[in-house]
Amino acid sequence: MVDLAVRRPGGRTARIRVAVLEATVSALIEHGYDGLTMERIADRAGVNKTTLYRRWGSRTGLVVDAVESYAAAQADIPDTGDIDEDLRRWARSIHTMLTGKVSGALVRAVFSAGDTAELRHLRQRFWLSRAVLVRPLVERAIIRGQLPPGTNIDEVIRHVGAPLYYRLLVLAEPLSVESADLAAAVTAAAAKAGVFIDKSAHPAHPATVARPKG
Amino acid sequence: MVDLAVRRPGGRTARIRVAVLEATVSALIEHGYDGLTMERIADRAGVNKTTLYRRWGSRTGLVVDAVESYAAAQADIPDTGDIDEDLRRWARSIHTMLTGKVSGALVRAVFSAGDTAELRHLRQRFWLSRAVLVRPLVERAIIRGQLPPGTNIDEVIRHVGAPLYYRLLVLAEPLSVESADLAAAVTAAAAKAGVFIDKSAHPAHPATVARPKG
Repeated sequence: MVDLAVRRPGGRTARIRVAVLEATVSALIEHGYDGLTMERIADRAGVNKTTLYRRWGSRTGLVVDAVESYAAAQADIPDTGDIDEDLRRWARSIHTMLTGKVSGALVRAVFSAGDTAELRHLRQRFWLSRAVLVRPLVERAIIRGQLPPGTNIDEVIRHVGAPLYYRLLVLAEPLSVESADLAAAVTAAAAKAGVFIDKSAHPAHPATVARPKG
Repeated sequence: MVDLAVRRPGGRTARIRVAVLEATVSALIEHGYDGLTMERIADRAGVNKTTLYRRWGSRTGLVVDAVESYAAAQADIPDTGDIDEDLRRWARSIHTMLTGKVSGALVRAVFSAGDTAELRHLRQRFWLSRAVLVRPLVERAIIRGQLPPGTNIDEVIRHVGAPLYYRLLVLAEPLSVESADLAAAVTAAAAKAGVFIDKSAHPAHPATVARPKG
């Protein structure tokens, strides 16, 4: 059973939503994206297929909702007051997600299923639903003066996750906790050195700006 | 037509090898890994199927040889005397490969085709055939004193490529030259700061090592 770990306020509507989203994640893992049908989800959740169409419109809408909820539920956003430690814990939370039995299978189902417009959309939503949660981690470090102003927050987030997804999904290498710590340390060192400062907002070579004549 | 850009010494044997490897890459791009058959490769190269089995043993052996040759032919290893510039050029060469019409299609065929033991082997060989070529770039920087001794060379190489492969193959985002430059700059800054120094070889916290008593 997949646990979305979201708050479950009472009420039949809320209960059905959780049951359907859990059924969607389970079916996605078991049958893959291509084998995922509304029938299978309805059967598993014990609801009528028309309920799914009425609430989520389409299979894509339903899968996006399920994957977003799951991705957000898996995100463990640290706030230790120290950017090195925060990024290290965030990288370890990615590691835990990627190597988890259910969560890892879900990530594989979403990210290794081929290359269609629908899947690209789903991947973007997965990324965004987690980026929204983790952005404050980097923002707080800028406010505390641990990272320079103008730091491109989304690029920092991308660079923490990239080596982990790359190892697992591209190179198909085993994923160690050490590689999570390394990805965090690399990103933190570069961020502190100002490498992530947006060049468009802060000209890298102010000396090349034309000086007024006279 | 796929150009392996390898030296082609005269002789029928060498000519056949190049024709077969080019046919393999073309067929892989056109039909994908699952649709790749020895018949198709033999037809395209204008050779007998038995020739393929005699020289390469199996489909896997042939694909590994073709992909390795192609991956190596695409690698443009800079040597400018400056590690920042060398890593930037290397990242741009990855960018060129990933966005190239033929090379990008080949990378997709190798890295987005699912998750079998055979494909994992193929991906490892692809990575290794390029890593072998690019290692001297990092080694030279250590010798010149631009990077600290003990720097884990393979991790440096992984971290330059990771954000680019991640964007293209995992997030399915467009790949800009700026993102290549950023990946190189992030890795260079972290490498100079000593983040890639192998902790096993150089204890990070020597103070925690037990001191002799007395």
